[in-house]
Amino acid sequence: MNRQELIEQIKEKQSFLCVGLDTDITKIPAHLLDEEDPIFAFNKAIIEATEDLCVAYKPNIAFYESYGVRGWQSLQKTWQAIPKSCFSIADAKRGDIGNTSNMYAQAFFDEAVSGMGFDSITIAPYMGKDSVTPFLDFEGKWAIVLALTSNSGSKDFQNFSNTDGKQLFEEVIDRVNTWGTVENLMYVVGATRGEAFLKIREHAPDHFLLVPGVGAQGGSLQDVCQYGMNKDCGLLVNSTRGIIYASNGKDFAERAREEAQKLQKEMALELIQAGVI
Amino acid sequence: MNRQELIEQIKEKQSFLCVGLDTDITKIPAHLLDEEDPIFAFNKAIIEATEDLCVAYKPNIAFYESYGVRGWQSLQKTWQAIPKSCFSIADAKRGDIGNTSNMYAQAFFDEAVSGMGFDSITIAPYMGKDSVTPFLDFEGKWAIVLALTSNSGSKDFQNFSNTDGKQLFEEVIDRVNTWGTVENLMYVVGATRGEAFLKIREHAPDHFLLVPGVGAQGGSLQDVCQYGMNKDCGLLVNSTRGIIYASNGKDFAERAREEAQKLQKEMALELIQAGVI
Repeated sequence: MNRQELIEQIKEKQSFLCVGLDTDITKIPAHLLDEEDPIFAFNKAIIEATEDLCVAYKPNIAFYESYGVRGWQSLQKTWQAIPKSCFSIADAKRGDIGNTSNMYAQAFFDEAVSGMGFDSITIAPYMGKDSVTPFLDFEGKWAIVLALTSNSGSKDFQNFSNTDGKQLFEEVIDRVNTWGTVENLMYVVGATRGEAFLKIREHAPDHFLLVPGVGAQGGSLQDVCQYGMNKDCGLLVNSTRGIIYASNGKDFAERAREEAQKLQKEMALELIQAGVI
Repeated sequence: MNRQELIEQIKEKQSFLCVGLDTDITKIPAHLLDEEDPIFAFNKAIIEATEDLCVAYKPNIAFYESYGVRGWQSLQKTWQAIPKSCFSIADAKRGDIGNTSNMYAQAFFDEAVSGMGFDSITIAPYMGKDSVTPFLDFEGKWAIVLALTSNSGSKDFQNFSNTDGKQLFEEVIDRVNTWGTVENLMYVVGATRGEAFLKIREHAPDHFLLVPGVGAQGGSLQDVCQYGMNKDCGLLVNSTRGIIYASNGKDFAERAREEAQKLQKEMALELIQAGVI
């Protein structure tokens, strides 16, 4: 999915919601455990209940990988179940030397080789340019690079400052900007620090930002929109636990839909207020 | 495998060689392509030909993941084929927020859940403490954290300096040191800059270092040993292409053994000169 198509989806659905598929077998409804592939059965029901309310799905690869081969089978089926009208994000935090990053790009982008063709993948930038560019070299695919994350450890290195007071996450954005364009590059920016988006937008005014941390992690949608939204929206705001674990009974999919709808309505208001729609 | 057992293996084999299993189906001998699982068949032959000459094996996870489900099957069988007397390294460069890193730790450490129980995994530190500690919490397992890598992009962020002239890779080592011990923590330090080991050893005098970049990437074993070896050896030096692709004919395993033996002999000399054995 290219940038223009993504923007059109956002306008059409009046939503910039990304639903996180961090599917944990210990948290899904008990009645699904009789299914042949409970994790996939859960994801399929969540996707069918929410696909008109969100513009993106983000499976967290660790939750599949932890089950080894059968986890990868669940992941592949989950990717197949994501409608092509939704932007798909492999939340994998990969990154290695050039030829190895190219293999990771094949794993998530090249359906003919790996069985999966996500639109995008999240990338850890520590190893620099040759660890990122192989993902950008895939026509029509996106690299979503970690900039300022929302976890407690984010301050350990991301705020490391040079002599000009420039912090590592700013250096990451400035350098990575020179390797790609707004058509194939996004950044991960955590929602827990709304005002941090002011600084992010100084460095990346036009890029889309993938924003985890709204809801269960404490970030405010209003703050994110106030400081982070641009004329094309420029935000994909992720919610996971608040949606997919809204209920662990037989009504889990309906309850997920209700929670997604609440967020979609808030997002529609934000898009109207900002003049995007 | 704990630190003492690793040191004993090094002394017994007179080797600190790690063989990288970056197994690429386009580079393996043609006669193996008739096997049910050519990648596994190749790895098994390489392991059987070299296991008395090296102390560690390091599958590069991207090379398996790129083939999706069947790649993970090859990886699982490869892990099973690594003798328990050899240290096993999942070269995965993982790292995410706490609960997600815990899932990655399960994927590579917890055989009961994932089917694989590597001794160690390589970790990207960008997300900070909670992205690293879940790996350290696994009893008897190791986190091998990226410090100073040998790829061309390593200078992009790893040399970012603060007002005291301290570079990011030094800050990484100093902080990560406080999260673990020499019993469960190693660092990745590329071999292409021998003198850089002087600075690394200021920050991590006693830790084991995993050293890629000797051989095909241009690093010198002598320089690495001169500046990086400590009283317990403290080095695992990786070689991949020079060993596993020494020949792509029917003699690939014998040729791999010959190349591994050359390195083992050089390493024995270094261990003797340094007084480790």
